[in-house]
Amino acid sequence: MQTNPIQLFDTESSTYTYIVAGPGSDAAVIIDPVDHHCERDLAHIARLGLRLAYILETHVHADHVTSAGRLRQLTGAHTAVPRGCDVPPAEVQLQDGDVIRFGDGETIAVMHTPGHTAGHMSYVWRGNVFTGDTLLIDGCGRTDFQGGSSAALYDSITQKLFALPDATRVWPAHDYKGQAVSTIRWEKAHNARVVGRSREEFIALMDNLHLPQPKLIDIAVPANRNLGLPHGG
Amino acid sequence: MQTNPIQLFDTESSTYTYIVAGPGSDAAVIIDPVDHHCERDLAHIARLGLRLAYILETHVHADHVTSAGRLRQLTGAHTAVPRGCDVPPAEVQLQDGDVIRFGDGETIAVMHTPGHTAGHMSYVWRGNVFTGDTLLIDGCGRTDFQGGSSAALYDSITQKLFALPDATRVWPAHDYKGQAVSTIRWEKAHNARVVGRSREEFIALMDNLHLPQPKLIDIAVPANRNLGLPHGG
Repeated sequence: MQTNPIQLFDTESSTYTYIVAGPGSDAAVIIDPVDHHCERDLAHIARLGLRLAYILETHVHADHVTSAGRLRQLTGAHTAVPRGCDVPPAEVQLQDGDVIRFGDGETIAVMHTPGHTAGHMSYVWRGNVFTGDTLLIDGCGRTDFQGGSSAALYDSITQKLFALPDATRVWPAHDYKGQAVSTIRWEKAHNARVVGRSREEFIALMDNLHLPQPKLIDIAVPANRNLGLPHGG
Repeated sequence: MQTNPIQLFDTESSTYTYIVAGPGSDAAVIIDPVDHHCERDLAHIARLGLRLAYILETHVHADHVTSAGRLRQLTGAHTAVPRGCDVPPAEVQLQDGDVIRFGDGETIAVMHTPGHTAGHMSYVWRGNVFTGDTLLIDGCGRTDFQGGSSAALYDSITQKLFALPDATRVWPAHDYKGQAVSTIRWEKAHNARVVGRSREEFIALMDNLHLPQPKLIDIAVPANRNLGLPHGG
């Protein structure tokens, strides 16, 4: 049955973190946690009476540092990351088609959606998809670093994500306009980057965005490859 | 079965607005919408494929203006307000014990929780309680205007809200510290205003807060008594 995650926001990087828990169990999963919100996120888990089972990353982020390693130290939860993201210290290395099991029969289906980065995964749970930077509300992630590919992103969005049931709720990793949630049905009909564009037109559009480098990229990417923990520690 | 609402935030007044919809139906209820987020809220309802059935207010707000009247004009949804809040243009005047029915068997139970204001209501839906300004996360609303009463607030929190099942999730009308949701269990054990204080001690605490008047009170209260619509229109 469809239910909603708990959605938390980081105003600095406009990142959404999600807490996912099924009814009738205290087991929870957190997706894309942000370093300086570690205490906030643990407080939510405590207030809700939950126990953290997994810490998931959709990809190696370039705009913020994860708290995954710290959350693992503090809670004993497992870290799970896409196999193609080069995060050696994570104990679960996810592949397309994997299923994460937790709580009382809860399952999260793992879907490889490359393009923003080569390893990027989306996660499907109870009528929701956590799309990371692959599909944003009325937009999509950039494709100009970390093995990004506009062609792969177009295929991930139009062939994989848009093949999910229309009513599936779309929860992105970021939003910059106060938008919280969308649906596959809506994005198929309205997404400003994809709708009405051929694969070639999409590639041309993405190749001409000329976005500045994320301010934190040289700090965030190496840190996130170590789950946000200090290197050599 | 427990599910979560969709929680939206107004950074100016730190107000939470909620969109509530059960699985298997397109009928939705919005709670405490804010005037300048009318378009944002309608966009969420459209993206989710929902149809607005009711617009609910927990009370007459002093810190922001509602979009209830405008949402009614634009969607045809019914406005429902606490009977004791003096909002004559609302077509549904709620009393303690009323039940709001919408969608495929969804019900919202209406619970009179006076204290922040005399008419204030809380709303119970699928294991959640929308507590307005009666119970905040680790706090509570002020009691020094609009028929407020510290004694009534203490009774509303400790006798009515704390009588809900422990696992009930608490969704407040405001938060000023990045906190999104709590539970009755947690607030009964930890709430900084109530826990460890007798009724008399709580009254003494609240009577000595000496908070400044809300900046918008002289605009917001008369506007909200007309559902946020211009008077004499």
